[in-house]
Amino acid sequence: MAQEPTAAEDEAAIRKLVESWAAAVRRKDMPAILRNHAADILMFDVPPPLRLEGIQAYEESWAPFYAASPTPTPFDIQEMSVTAGRDVAFVAALERCALAGPGGMNVDLDFRLTIGLRKIDGQWTITHEHHSLPATD
Amino acid sequence: MAQEPTAAEDEAAIRKLVESWAAAVRRKDMPAILRNHAADILMFDVPPPLRLEGIQAYEESWAPFYAASPTPTPFDIQEMSVTAGRDVAFVAALERCALAGPGGMNVDLDFRLTIGLRKIDGQWTITHEHHSLPATD
Repeated sequence: MAQEPTAAEDEAAIRKLVESWAAAVRRKDMPAILRNHAADILMFDVPPPLRLEGIQAYEESWAPFYAASPTPTPFDIQEMSVTAGRDVAFVAALERCALAGPGGMNVDLDFRLTIGLRKIDGQWTITHEHHSLPATD
Repeated sequence: MAQEPTAAEDEAAIRKLVESWAAAVRRKDMPAILRNHAADILMFDVPPPLRLEGIQAYEESWAPFYAASPTPTPFDIQEMSVTAGRDVAFVAALERCALAGPGGMNVDLDFRLTIGLRKIDGQWTITHEHHSLPATD
């Protein structure tokens, strides 16, 4: 049996997984966006509804995002904190995307992201994402 | 050395911790609200700013909530999913609070809540909370 990874190795693996996911979002590479997600992912997204469940609903949630975003699509991790246990982990991050404006006048949009992961068959897998903006009213 | 708790025992302990915290919010019992929180908690709250850090900022974040809420204060868990590892866990929940309206006409407000926890010296401790509403525009 292979040696268990250390806490530092788990943290590094999760950091790399989240960075790869964000890079996949930037290049609109849906198979790579979905690569490390559970079939029953629970998603709290920026726009309504309150909750989405399952990988198909998660995949479909990206269409309105791309419709509102400029191309190339910014989706950049500004800060990321990884808390990794042996078999469960979570990530709290701030990210910057953008809304496409008239005449190429794009507006930066900073949002909050929390990701929950389980290690399933030795592979860190995203089972929960929570994306949000602060409320405006 | 005491026996390690089982996964089911950890999940039950976390569920009870979150329910106790919500009850403390309802009765405006600040010491109980803060009881299981880390000094360096990272909070993504419903209103701005984008992020808050530290237990003092967390405590202060409750004043605007109570100013906007009716008394008695609803803060009720509608659904809760607990993912507990041996030393790290996260919770995804939907909760219902309310905004006080004129003439006692309160408006129910459903929000999303993700909580990150670490087991520190044998005690589950909240190190991250993310509260949000879906964006309205």
